[in-house]
Amino acid sequence: MEKQPVLQFVGVLHGDITRREDAPKNYTESERIGSLEIFPEYAEALDGIVAGQTIVVLFWLHQAARDVLKVHPRGDHSRPLRGVFATRSPFRPNPVGISELKVLAMHGSRLEVSGVDILDGTPVIDIKKKTD
Amino acid sequence: MEKQPVLQFVGVLHGDITRREDAPKNYTESERIGSLEIFPEYAEALDGIVAGQTIVVLFWLHQAARDVLKVHPRGDHSRPLRGVFATRSPFRPNPVGISELKVLAMHGSRLEVSGVDILDGTPVIDIKKKTD
Repeated sequence: MEKQPVLQFVGVLHGDITRREDAPKNYTESERIGSLEIFPEYAEALDGIVAGQTIVVLFWLHQAARDVLKVHPRGDHSRPLRGVFATRSPFRPNPVGISELKVLAMHGSRLEVSGVDILDGTPVIDIKKKTD
Repeated sequence: MEKQPVLQFVGVLHGDITRREDAPKNYTESERIGSLEIFPEYAEALDGIVAGQTIVVLFWLHQAARDVLKVHPRGDHSRPLRGVFATRSPFRPNPVGISELKVLAMHGSRLEVSGVDILDGTPVIDIKKKTD
């Protein structure tokens, strides 16, 4: 088994959140609109996604520290430190973020989505159908 | 930005599914029990996880092909090919699997869990709190 696999970025998020302090804590708290630009070599993998559906999008949170194992939940220093695996902090050994986004429209390999809680320019690593 | 980040395995799943054809199609269809062994250097990140809660676990599906962009959903060849991003196939450019597992018990850095739909020996790359 390959012990340290390498991720391939399949696209990038375009949105209006440019500072970490402006990002909602979670997609469940966001109604922001943005777009997922999927790179041409992966466009075929979008076949079957339709406007109106909710998709699960995995992002590589490229600005997050990877060497932090405990955080104050939601950045609130009045709360005791917790292990990052017990939270949804972006700080974690492999900073993969999961958002459930609603597809508003598809324009070729660009998906207009709502529910964005992620910084503009964040790489996309995967998209999945939401479980039934 | 690091263009091709390298994943670090933080643990491994132990379970009784040893053949891909025996794996449930989804965690929502499984009541199987297994355990997550988190490696000692990441054990601190578990602090705050308690028995009874549901956690989101990200796996690296190390046996999945990464160069497949279209599949027959659920491996059913009577169904038309779809883009992998419109499915939950393990085949995808970055084969990250997401399961929601219930924590039955914690023994140090080993978590006994139910809902396992993943092959024995699959590497763990992340654990998150489920969104409220």
